[in-house]
Amino acid sequence: MRKVGIIMGSDSDLPIVAKATDVLKSLEIPFEVHVYSAHRTPEEARDFALQARENGFGVIIAAAGMAAHLAGALAANTILPVIGIPCKGGALDGLDALLSTVQMPSGIPVATVALNGGANAALLAAQMLALEDEALAEKLLSRRAAEKAAVLEKDAGIMERL
Amino acid sequence: MRKVGIIMGSDSDLPIVAKATDVLKSLEIPFEVHVYSAHRTPEEARDFALQARENGFGVIIAAAGMAAHLAGALAANTILPVIGIPCKGGALDGLDALLSTVQMPSGIPVATVALNGGANAALLAAQMLALEDEALAEKLLSRRAAEKAAVLEKDAGIMERL
Amino acid sequence: MRKVGIIMGSDSDLPIVAKATDVLKSLEIPFEVHVYSAHRTPEEARDFALQARENGFGVIIAAAGMAAHLAGALAANTILPVIGIPCKGGALDGLDALLSTVQMPSGIPVATVALNGGANAALLAAQMLALEDEALAEKLLSRRAAEKAAVLEKDAGIMERL
Amino acid sequence: MRKVGIIMGSDSDLPIVAKATDVLKSLEIPFEVHVYSAHRTPEEARDFALQARENGFGVIIAAAGMAAHLAGALAANTILPVIGIPCKGGALDGLDALLSTVQMPSGIPVATVALNGGANAALLAAQMLALEDEALAEKLLSRRAAEKAAVLEKDAGIMERL
Amino acid sequence: MRKVGIIMGSDSDLPIVAKATDVLKSLEIPFEVHVYSAHRTPEEARDFALQARENGFGVIIAAAGMAAHLAGALAANTILPVIGIPCKGGALDGLDALLSTVQMPSGIPVATVALNGGANAALLAAQMLALEDEALAEKLLSRRAAEKAAVLEKDAGIMERL
Amino acid sequence: MRKVGIIMGSDSDLPIVAKATDVLKSLEIPFEVHVYSAHRTPEEARDFALQARENGFGVIIAAAGMAAHLAGALAANTILPVIGIPCKGGALDGLDALLSTVQMPSGIPVATVALNGGANAALLAAQMLALEDEALAEKLLSRRAAEKAAVLEKDAGIMERL
Amino acid sequence: MRKVGIIMGSDSDLPIVAKATDVLKSLEIPFEVHVYSAHRTPEEARDFALQARENGFGVIIAAAGMAAHLAGALAANTILPVIGIPCKGGALDGLDALLSTVQMPSGIPVATVALNGGANAALLAAQMLALEDEALAEKLLSRRAAEKAAVLEKDAGIMERL
Amino acid sequence: MRKVGIIMGSDSDLPIVAKATDVLKSLEIPFEVHVYSAHRTPEEARDFALQARENGFGVIIAAAGMAAHLAGALAANTILPVIGIPCKGGALDGLDALLSTVQMPSGIPVATVALNGGANAALLAAQMLALEDEALAEKLLSRRAAEKAAVLEKDAGIMERL
Repeated sequence: MRKVGIIMGSDSDLPIVAKATDVLKSLEIPFEVHVYSAHRTPEEARDFALQARENGFGVIIAAAGMAAHLAGALAANTILPVIGIPCKGGALDGLDALLSTVQMPSGIPVATVALNGGANAALLAAQMLALEDEALAEKLLSRRAAEKAAVLEKDAGIMERL
Repeated sequence: MRKVGIIMGSDSDLPIVAKATDVLKSLEIPFEVHVYSAHRTPEEARDFALQARENGFGVIIAAAGMAAHLAGALAANTILPVIGIPCKGGALDGLDALLSTVQMPSGIPVATVALNGGANAALLAAQMLALEDEALAEKLLSRRAAEKAAVLEKDAGIMERL
Repeated sequence: MRKVGIIMGSDSDLPIVAKATDVLKSLEIPFEVHVYSAHRTPEEARDFALQARENGFGVIIAAAGMAAHLAGALAANTILPVIGIPCKGGALDGLDALLSTVQMPSGIPVATVALNGGANAALLAAQMLALEDEALAEKLLSRRAAEKAAVLEKDAGIMERL
Repeated sequence: MRKVGIIMGSDSDLPIVAKATDVLKSLEIPFEVHVYSAHRTPEEARDFALQARENGFGVIIAAAGMAAHLAGALAANTILPVIGIPCKGGALDGLDALLSTVQMPSGIPVATVALNGGANAALLAAQMLALEDEALAEKLLSRRAAEKAAVLEKDAGIMERL
Repeated sequence: MRKVGIIMGSDSDLPIVAKATDVLKSLEIPFEVHVYSAHRTPEEARDFALQARENGFGVIIAAAGMAAHLAGALAANTILPVIGIPCKGGALDGLDALLSTVQMPSGIPVATVALNGGANAALLAAQMLALEDEALAEKLLSRRAAEKAAVLEKDAGIMERL
Repeated sequence: MRKVGIIMGSDSDLPIVAKATDVLKSLEIPFEVHVYSAHRTPEEARDFALQARENGFGVIIAAAGMAAHLAGALAANTILPVIGIPCKGGALDGLDALLSTVQMPSGIPVATVALNGGANAALLAAQMLALEDEALAEKLLSRRAAEKAAVLEKDAGIMERL
Repeated sequence: MRKVGIIMGSDSDLPIVAKATDVLKSLEIPFEVHVYSAHRTPEEARDFALQARENGFGVIIAAAGMAAHLAGALAANTILPVIGIPCKGGALDGLDALLSTVQMPSGIPVATVALNGGANAALLAAQMLALEDEALAEKLLSRRAAEKAAVLEKDAGIMERL
Repeated sequence: MRKVGIIMGSDSDLPIVAKATDVLKSLEIPFEVHVYSAHRTPEEARDFALQARENGFGVIIAAAGMAAHLAGALAANTILPVIGIPCKGGALDGLDALLSTVQMPSGIPVATVALNGGANAALLAAQMLALEDEALAEKLLSRRAAEKAAVLEKDAGIMERL
């Protein structure tokens, strides 16, 4: 099974990445995590992306804040799908990271999820890998069912909490 | 080969969708296009998503503007990856569509591309499908090389244009 | 008397919904509250809206944050008036929820109130129901008078607080 | 049948109001239109709101741009539901009008629709009046069905347009 | 000497108004403070503005948040200069109040100061009153000199604090 | 009678300033207009402000766009009231000029009017000068009455235009 | 004399770059212009930056729009000063490019100028080079004087244009 | 060696300036710090800029918040490069200071760094001074290497922290 590569621009993004790795663990998807900055370690970031396909990766997730160039810098060096997690903390409640991640020029897409959306980045990666992995697809369906059940359980008890 | 399903919320989004279908055609990826509104035809949108996997789709692309719920409404009903194209035209130069598409709650991701990013939505879909399709991966690599060559050709002639 | 149906996308929105139910209780308007997510329980949300009129509801209030699709998803399935409460917490101090709620396409309106505006959502529902209920109209007029008196009482003592 | 009162802050908002009156005409809902500015004719705006209930109005629609106080100024003087249409043209692509209309303080709600949302304001008014008018409810259901059919007709021909 | 009238939309704005009254006291300018809401006590707000000139006021200051209509509602009923203080707390870090205060339509100006700018509102009022009051002008010049001295004192000690 | 000094940062702001001078002419208020840039001619701008009181000015109006420092730079050098007109054309539909003009630090206020609000800047200046000029006050009241009449004339004919 | 290197992400940015080269020509500063995309030709962009110092460059100017990573990508690979020109055209009237350019993480600065600010980017580069070049400094002072004279000439004729 | 002049508009900006002086100390670059407000001490700010070149300064750094005119006011009076640090705390999470600093008119550039970007302002100043100072250039290269090593050390231990 192809691995998911997760790159964070700074280890201050670890809590957001942890939400992603928790999901990947629960789905038994192998992953590898790195701290590579697009600006402070551009070579390492580039090399990771250039070699990701042959190194057994299927999807790359990048988490970065402020002028969040990381996802785009990785995407420029691979045709693997790159998922970008914009992280809050810079300016305008994270709008800087969101726009820096999502507004990629034609030719080099980044699949952007919500601000601080670590769990969804992992789920999106899983959905891509599940295209050719029926067992993983089943796990995703089960997870959806469990989430639905959790909402309905909340619903069942809500009137008493008012 | 799995098809790409493209849903637009209104046929006024056709020029943006056409950029996506042009890319898919050039990559010889089969696709199907529909006009389904999350709000005016919620049943059709839901049914498309619910049956997309068994109907041979691998990825869904949704293009919508304003309170752009379409990508999320589709994603809620499938575990196929859903790519959202926020379309300009509502408020704040498209910020309404961007935030409505990308800020999905935990559990139901949408892979969001740039505002009006039809070509990138198609390329992202192709990158997902190429995970298990080496021929398609080669086409994507060729396309990247061609884009690079086009930039360098522009570079070669730029000093004369100043 | 027709009931008010209140749907929240997550039970984390309960404090905002409680402001609405407090108002409804004080006006003796019957209500029912549910936790239904537009994305995690789309069927339940849809079914509630589809059956709301025949189930005795007169107005629906939806509270949701981030890419707040809930009010729109309900409105798409009923001709009852749907009131949307955008909830802060996502991006840009709630602008994501506000735009996702208010920028509905032509044909499917959502009556949007202020960010976190639980009390006003309930008052707006009451104003709709009071169109054909003179007793409720009187209660609303009394409430306005009481609010005015409260302001004037604050006014009477303000110079001493400076 | 109760009338819909439509107030515009300036006759430059007429094209947006015309979208509302077109809907009301098609639904055979009686209406009255006025040009009253919250700032240039505050007395007339106030008096209209104060007397609207006894003058046979059921809903008030207010269209205004920039620091759009009109809907709020009307709502302060009536317990009829007031629907606000924020109009573009001031600053930030209409964000000034949207925030000035929707961010009402607790106690005095305004039911805000999308920027320039004339048609939806009228439909929302109709949905309120239909609470006690089954014939109007039927017209609204027919209109929804017609809109759905229009989308599906667009869908049927979309592949040929690509 | 003409008085300054200060109206706040809610007594929660008292800390901001206190910054204004502190300045007025230090300049020995008489003032009167009221809590009048444009929406909850529209008559009182209007009457204050209508009678302000004959009641000996020279300038009116209005402090309000959210859809801050108060300054505009007062300005609509007087030709005295009205200074608006937009107060934070609603949406977008106070942008709602700022735009609702400053974006007045042609004909009815509001002199808007910075968000939460209580002191500057009072100083601006004093600058207006000083047009025909040389003694007050002298106090304002002294105050400027004192502020300058305070900055230069900070400057003198800054290198030691690094 | 004290003059109004109008400074524009660039002669490209002339159409906005012309709206101000039209109002001043109609009110028979003397004025003087200059093109002084806060950045390209800082000395001239400063000297104008420093000498404005003794040169017979009562109010200063400053029109500037982008990082609109002009009003603040003038206000720093005079205790005359300074009115700032933020001009569109830079970034974010004029938000740069609005924030640069209105967000002045404590001690140095600028009375900010709406984006491109030339007419209101002149009216605000007139309202300040009218504090001690009953004849001017009468003209302002007449102007208000004429504006009200103009709205009501529009109102009288509006139903026929629908 | 060290050269200025100008990199644009796309030749659609040529008009903005031309404003920069016009200034450099007038100041007789040698320059070299390239079209290198951070995403489509990452190697070329990187190599240019890595070798810029030894290739005789003193300052680098980068012009890019949307998720404008170009200036940051260059800055990551050189200790020469890098000036970023954010170009409008993406989202939010250029806010995407502005934030993507200016919000660089600690360690790798980009000297950002105004949106579309081609001329100022060149002037800033000249000011840096003038630190050790008195003749260039003199040219810059002359240019300032000429700009001042141009404003004052506009000022001299402004009253006749009203 | 030329000095770096650092001006802060208020001593509340000291923590941000301290990040700059820490960097300058570590690079052994001489500096001088002042508290000069563009609005409260305009003469001192101007005089500093006018005399900065002859007083041995090579670069000026200005830190200011709200309507941050300081960098522009300094830049208007010198041809030395002026670096602006926009400081958060005013409106919209610092957007007021960012736009007021960066959106300078053509002719007078300000090299703007990220919000609160004290360290980067100092690094940018050092990069300018290093153009003619090989020893300083070596220190900057060493610093880059150290930052890279710090990231890679974080990378080496990251898997254990998940």
